[in-house]
Amino acid sequence: MDAIIWENDSLRLLDQTKLPRSIEYIECNDYRTVAEAIKRLAVRGAPAIGAAAAYGLVVGARQIEAADRKTFLEKLEAIAGELGATRPTAVNLRWALDRMMMRLTTAPEQDVQELRRIMLDEAHAIYNEDVQSNRKMGEFGQELLPDGARVLTHCNAGALATAGYGTALGVIRAAHEKGKQISVYADETRPLLQGARLTAWEMVQEGIPVTLITDNMAGYLMAKKMVDCVIVGADRITANGDVANKIGTYGVAVLAKYHNIPFYVAAPLSTIDMGLSSGEEIPIEERDPREVTHHAGQAMAPDGVQVWNPAFDVTPNHLVTAIITEMGIVYPPYIENLAKICGYKK
Amino acid sequence: MDAIIWENDSLRLLDQTKLPRSIEYIECNDYRTVAEAIKRLAVRGAPAIGAAAAYGLVVGARQIEAADRKTFLEKLEAIAGELGATRPTAVNLRWALDRMMMRLTTAPEQDVQELRRIMLDEAHAIYNEDVQSNRKMGEFGQELLPDGARVLTHCNAGALATAGYGTALGVIRAAHEKGKQISVYADETRPLLQGARLTAWEMVQEGIPVTLITDNMAGYLMAKKMVDCVIVGADRITANGDVANKIGTYGVAVLAKYHNIPFYVAAPLSTIDMGLSSGEEIPIEERDPREVTHHAGQAMAPDGVQVWNPAFDVTPNHLVTAIITEMGIVYPPYIENLAKICGYKK
Repeated sequence: MDAIIWENDSLRLLDQTKLPRSIEYIECNDYRTVAEAIKRLAVRGAPAIGAAAAYGLVVGARQIEAADRKTFLEKLEAIAGELGATRPTAVNLRWALDRMMMRLTTAPEQDVQELRRIMLDEAHAIYNEDVQSNRKMGEFGQELLPDGARVLTHCNAGALATAGYGTALGVIRAAHEKGKQISVYADETRPLLQGARLTAWEMVQEGIPVTLITDNMAGYLMAKKMVDCVIVGADRITANGDVANKIGTYGVAVLAKYHNIPFYVAAPLSTIDMGLSSGEEIPIEERDPREVTHHAGQAMAPDGVQVWNPAFDVTPNHLVTAIITEMGIVYPPYIENLAKICGYKK
Repeated sequence: MDAIIWENDSLRLLDQTKLPRSIEYIECNDYRTVAEAIKRLAVRGAPAIGAAAAYGLVVGARQIEAADRKTFLEKLEAIAGELGATRPTAVNLRWALDRMMMRLTTAPEQDVQELRRIMLDEAHAIYNEDVQSNRKMGEFGQELLPDGARVLTHCNAGALATAGYGTALGVIRAAHEKGKQISVYADETRPLLQGARLTAWEMVQEGIPVTLITDNMAGYLMAKKMVDCVIVGADRITANGDVANKIGTYGVAVLAKYHNIPFYVAAPLSTIDMGLSSGEEIPIEERDPREVTHHAGQAMAPDGVQVWNPAFDVTPNHLVTAIITEMGIVYPPYIENLAKICGYKK
């Protein structure tokens, strides 16, 4: 099941809000459809929204009527701005759009039609590299999972959150493919239930044993020694190794620390934002209170109740045992070791 | 809004599964209706199910046709057994039924009609004493809440969970009545959303500022220094001060410890089980997976996914800053101080 499909010269996005009840794709002939899909989480997961936005820019490029390079690039920049403004926390979104624009602005081609072709190639490259990165993360990361490991994960960092295979779930898949007996506990992940709807579903499809829990059971699960390690994905990692990820991740990390359980983060280098020195600088998206108060159109809370609904939280580096990337596993001290792996010179 | 009403010589229980959408009472002319209401959480909360079971036994006593004391008591014992088997964790259920049976078996009266009258008096006493206990807990406990306190609570330990006023929410109410500026964060409390449906609703009714969060936001809320203390109720407290309470309580307690935030438990002495030496001996109810996988009849997870659904967890005594009872505030060491307050001699 692919979250993002480019086929017959057009883009389709899996509407993940409908999963697992029904499998529906959104035809994207307008970049605004892509922007809307990202905003309402029809496509979600840091690497997936990066790739979707790249393809969204390709779609947008076709809507520009300008025939000269300069006007074309100006209009494209505006579209990239719109796509980039859909969600603030995952850095892959901005990273992918920047990469697309960079590729164009440094291209010598003057012909707009040619530029459009280059864009499609670049979007394909972003997509394909992400799948490859996930495979490599899986190879590196699976070594951290002993045979018989019972792994807790939060939210969905699977094939659906990426171009394919997954980050955190990619590591689990790779260990499973190696023939290890791996079982998974999936936090349901309120308010939007990505764990229940997406992670549990991916694992069931894959035949990897999975047990669903509500988020508030993770602590008791650890106290009962039913978990060997935690693996999650990331929406943004800062230069010091602080990790922004789905709301609730921080609580799981504290619980893991308290119970002496390793806490791993799996993410491609495109998720690492070397421009920010610490997690305090990461913009945290706050979303519609109705995500918390309503389900399937039905109110679950009294009218007018105040709600706090941050979509992400920040886990400080000292709670992170290791970060699994496509270039290898990074251990503390992160300031030094992330810089190395990202090719920065100290 | 009373959870339990005895009026015109008959019992009505508020169907809390329908809150806050609609207010419906269940007429209980059969003790099995009471048992069913407790099982499916129409009435819930340790003190409330104690009082409801006591009235349920009164209802059951009227259904017994035996005219002699011996047969009457035997049949009543069977009914008490059925009511007591509805839920295993909250000790108040067994405590209330034991108290009812003890009152009868030590009564000299031979006349069954007279015994029925005594039972009703005893059920009223249990009910009224619970309201008084909550008021006293409120008086003692409010001293722990400074003016301006931002209090996090989990599940519902309010008027709806008791005969009235509430344990944890009783403390908050008392502080509010003293004129202190108190604001509340309510964990929604999955899977059955007692925080969203009941606590938020009680606070909105009362005019106490309340903000609803999903359970997995509690950690980030604490990290952002938005909480000054935690207060929860309890379903059973063992002689050493271990606390069984709604699933998720343990996680909140660990998070509170990590962030140096006081973690208070408010519960009447009827919740303290001096017969158990530690929390490991408390039976933890596991409930239907559908509570986790379904909402309003709609599946939120893939078919056939495995689910772990413990309704409670156990918070070890070293995470509990103090226990607020109707006899005063109990601090560690709990083995000694709970024994004292319960009138046990060491």
